[in-house]
Amino acid sequence: MSEARDKATLAKAAAPEVARAPRGVRERALRLAAENIRAAETDIVAANARDLERARAAGMSEPLQDRLMLDGSRIRAIADALDDIARQEDPLGLVLGGSTLENGLRIERVTVPLGVVAMIYEARPNVTADAFGLCVRSGNACVLKGGSAARESCLAIVGACRVALVEAGLPQDALQYVDDDAAHTQTAELLGATGLVDVLIPRGGASLIRACVEGAKVPVIETGTGNCHVYVHEAADLDRARAIVMNAKTQRVGVCNAAESLLVDRSVAAAFLPAMVSELAAAGVVVHGDAETRAALADRPDLLSSFVDATEEDWGREYLALEISCRVVSGVDEAVEHVNRYGTGHSEAIVSNSYEACEAFLAGVDAAVVYANASTRFTDGGVFGLGAEIGISTQKLHARGPMGAAALTTTKWLARGEGQVR
Amino acid sequence: MSEARDKATLAKAAAPEVARAPRGVRERALRLAAENIRAAETDIVAANARDLERARAAGMSEPLQDRLMLDGSRIRAIADALDDIARQEDPLGLVLGGSTLENGLRIERVTVPLGVVAMIYEARPNVTADAFGLCVRSGNACVLKGGSAARESCLAIVGACRVALVEAGLPQDALQYVDDDAAHTQTAELLGATGLVDVLIPRGGASLIRACVEGAKVPVIETGTGNCHVYVHEAADLDRARAIVMNAKTQRVGVCNAAESLLVDRSVAAAFLPAMVSELAAAGVVVHGDAETRAALADRPDLLSSFVDATEEDWGREYLALEISCRVVSGVDEAVEHVNRYGTGHSEAIVSNSYEACEAFLAGVDAAVVYANASTRFTDGGVFGLGAEIGISTQKLHARGPMGAAALTTTKWLARGEGQVR
Repeated sequence: MSEARDKATLAKAAAPEVARAPRGVRERALRLAAENIRAAETDIVAANARDLERARAAGMSEPLQDRLMLDGSRIRAIADALDDIARQEDPLGLVLGGSTLENGLRIERVTVPLGVVAMIYEARPNVTADAFGLCVRSGNACVLKGGSAARESCLAIVGACRVALVEAGLPQDALQYVDDDAAHTQTAELLGATGLVDVLIPRGGASLIRACVEGAKVPVIETGTGNCHVYVHEAADLDRARAIVMNAKTQRVGVCNAAESLLVDRSVAAAFLPAMVSELAAAGVVVHGDAETRAALADRPDLLSSFVDATEEDWGREYLALEISCRVVSGVDEAVEHVNRYGTGHSEAIVSNSYEACEAFLAGVDAAVVYANASTRFTDGGVFGLGAEIGISTQKLHARGPMGAAALTTTKWLARGEGQVR
Repeated sequence: MSEARDKATLAKAAAPEVARAPRGVRERALRLAAENIRAAETDIVAANARDLERARAAGMSEPLQDRLMLDGSRIRAIADALDDIARQEDPLGLVLGGSTLENGLRIERVTVPLGVVAMIYEARPNVTADAFGLCVRSGNACVLKGGSAARESCLAIVGACRVALVEAGLPQDALQYVDDDAAHTQTAELLGATGLVDVLIPRGGASLIRACVEGAKVPVIETGTGNCHVYVHEAADLDRARAIVMNAKTQRVGVCNAAESLLVDRSVAAAFLPAMVSELAAAGVVVHGDAETRAALADRPDLLSSFVDATEEDWGREYLALEISCRVVSGVDEAVEHVNRYGTGHSEAIVSNSYEACEAFLAGVDAAVVYANASTRFTDGGVFGLGAEIGISTQKLHARGPMGAAALTTTKWLARGEGQVR
C-alpha cells in the first residue's frame, strides 16, 4: 500500500498554491478552520468518545487517556489557538538582507515556505490543528500522521480544516492525514518520501523520535527529548535553588522541559541536600543519588525511603516521572562537563549569585536554552513570544529550541539584472 | 578499523576549546596557517608531484589532473584565501534577537559554533585549507576526508594547519584528516558518527553526494548538484538572451552553476533558436532538443551535426560538459513547472523585458537563487559577498545557496533571571 506516498504527492502538488496565497487568504483559512471546529464540537466529541472507548478497552493508561480526551472547553481552546496563529506576524516574504553587487546585480534573500511539512505524532488530537495552523501560516502544505488511538478525533478535526481550506479558496489537498497502521508501513513510507517531503518533524516520545531520525531519508528535525539539569553552585541562594528545583521537577512531570537531574557543588551539599531531598520526598519524588548525595543525607535516615543509589544509566535518563537523579560535583567546570556529556541539548539551568559562574555556565553548556537563576520550565514557543509551537528542536541544524511558524520557512535569493554575465 | 570514529572523537574533545577561543586567537591561527603553507611550498609541491605521478599512472583524466595539481601560484592562492577568511567578520556571538519576558526573564538568541563539522570531498587539495579556514573562523573543530588521489597534498596542507593551531594556542586535534580507503569504510563511519559529528557536508559529484545523503545518520547538508535552466521568455531581448545563455553554458562547463538546459517560448523559437544554436555549435556545444527545437532549425541543416533529439532523461541531466538540453514551452507557467519538476533547486534564470513574467518566474521557481536577466554563473559565496564558501546548499533546511562561515553556526538561547519559576 502506498497511501502515505500518494498523499505526500497530493500535498506536493497543492503546495505551490498555498505558497503563493496572500497572507489574507491563509489567515482566512485559519479563522474558518477555527469556526468549523467550534461548529463541529458535537461531532468531534462523539468521534473522541469512540477513540476513548477503544483506548480504554485496550488498557490505555489514565494520563494518556487524559491527553487523548476532548471536551467542549478543549475543543474551543484548539479553535482559539488557530485564531491566535491567524493573528501572528506573517513569516513569509521577509527580506533578510541583500545588496547591489559591483556589476549592478541586485540580490536579496527572502523567506519562503519549505513546501511540504510532514509530522508524525502520538495520540494527541490538538497537535493535528496546531500543525495544520502553523503550516498554513507559513505557506506550507502538510502531511500529518497521528497515533492510531486518536484516529477518529484527528479525522474529525482534519475534516473541519479541509473544508476551511476550500472555503478560503485554497486546495483541500494541502492538508493530508495518513492513518496509522500496526505495521508502521505508512511511517516508513513517509520517512522515505524524498523529493516529496521537505521536512519531517516527529513529536512524541524518545523511541518515536529515534526511529524517525535513524530511519529517515528525508530531512528530519529532532525534537523534544529533554534530560534537563539544574546545577546548584556553591554561591547559590539555597532557598531560591530549592524553589527552582521544585518547580522544574514537579510543576508538570511529563513534559520535556522538566528537570530530570540535579547537580550540587560539594561545598554546599551538606547544607543544601537534606532540606532539598526532604522537600522532594514530600512531593513524592524519588532521588537517584550518588554516594556523596547519600552521605549528605546521613543525618536524615527518614529520607532514605525516597532515595535509591544512582547507576551510570540514571545520568542519561529522562524520567518524565516523579524521579530525579542527583550528583555532587566539584564546581562549574565539572557541572558543564556532566551536562554536555549526559544532557540532550534541551534546557539547562545554573543557580548562583556568582557572576563568573553564571557566565561560564551560560557560555559552556551546549544546549538550546541555558538559564541562570530560573526554572527550565520556561522553554516554550508561547512563553518565548514565538506564538504557537510545532515542537522544541534539540538539534543544531536549521532550528534550535522552540520552533514557531518561522522554523517552517527557508530562504531564496532573488537576483535582478540587466544582462550581467561573468 | 575505527580511524574515522576515533578522529571524530578527538575533534569533539577539542571543539569546546575552539568554540570559546576569542576571535583574535582564531584569526591568528588562520594567518599562521597561511604563513606555514607559504613556507612549506617546496614540500607541498613535492607531495603533490607524488600524488600526480600516481594519478597519471592510474589513468586520471587531464581535467581531474589539473584540479589536483598544485604549483607555487596555486599554493599562494590557498594561503591568501586563509588570510581573507581571517579578515572576514566573525560569525560568533552575534545577538540575533531577544526580549524581556513579562516575568522579568531576559532572553537572547546568540550565534554559536555547530561543534564538529565533517567534510567529504574529492581530489581537490585546496578544499582542505578552505574547509579548515571556514571551520576555525566559525569556532568549529573539523574532520576532513579528501579523495585518495590527493592524499599526500592534503596531508602536507593539514600538517601546516595543525602546527598553526598549536602556535596560536589551540588544540591541534581540532583538525583531523581521515585517509580514504578503497572500501569506503571510513566514509561509512563518518556517516554513522552520531553524537560526534554535528554536520556532514559532502562536496563533489552527484554520486558522492547521493551516497552521503542516503547513508548518513548524522545531519547532512546537500550541496552542489546543479541542473540549471535559462528560460527565454517571448518578451526577451534576444541578443541579451544569447549572451546570457553562452555565458551560463560555456564560460566554465564543469561547475555547478553552469546552465544545463534552455527553455524557449514558442512564439520566439523560430526567431531565437537558429542564431542561438549556431552560436552554441560554434563553441562546440551539442544541443539535445525536443521536436519543436528541431523544427525551428529546419532552415539550417548545417546545425544538425550539433543537434540530437532529447530524451526524457535529458531534462534531468547535469552534463557538466559542452552539452545543453533545449525545450520549447508555451510561456512562463510551463517554464516554471518544468524548472520545478526537473531542476535541482540550484540556480535558475529568466530573460525577459516583461515585468510580470520576471516577477512570476522569481516568485514561482523553487530554487536557492533565481535570476532575472543575468547569468546563473553568479551563484557563488565570494560574488554574493559571503566571503569564502564551503559549498552551495541545494536543500532547504538550515542553509540554502552559497554557504559561508555563518552557515557553520547555530544559535543558543540564553535566559537570565532572579529565581523565576512557572
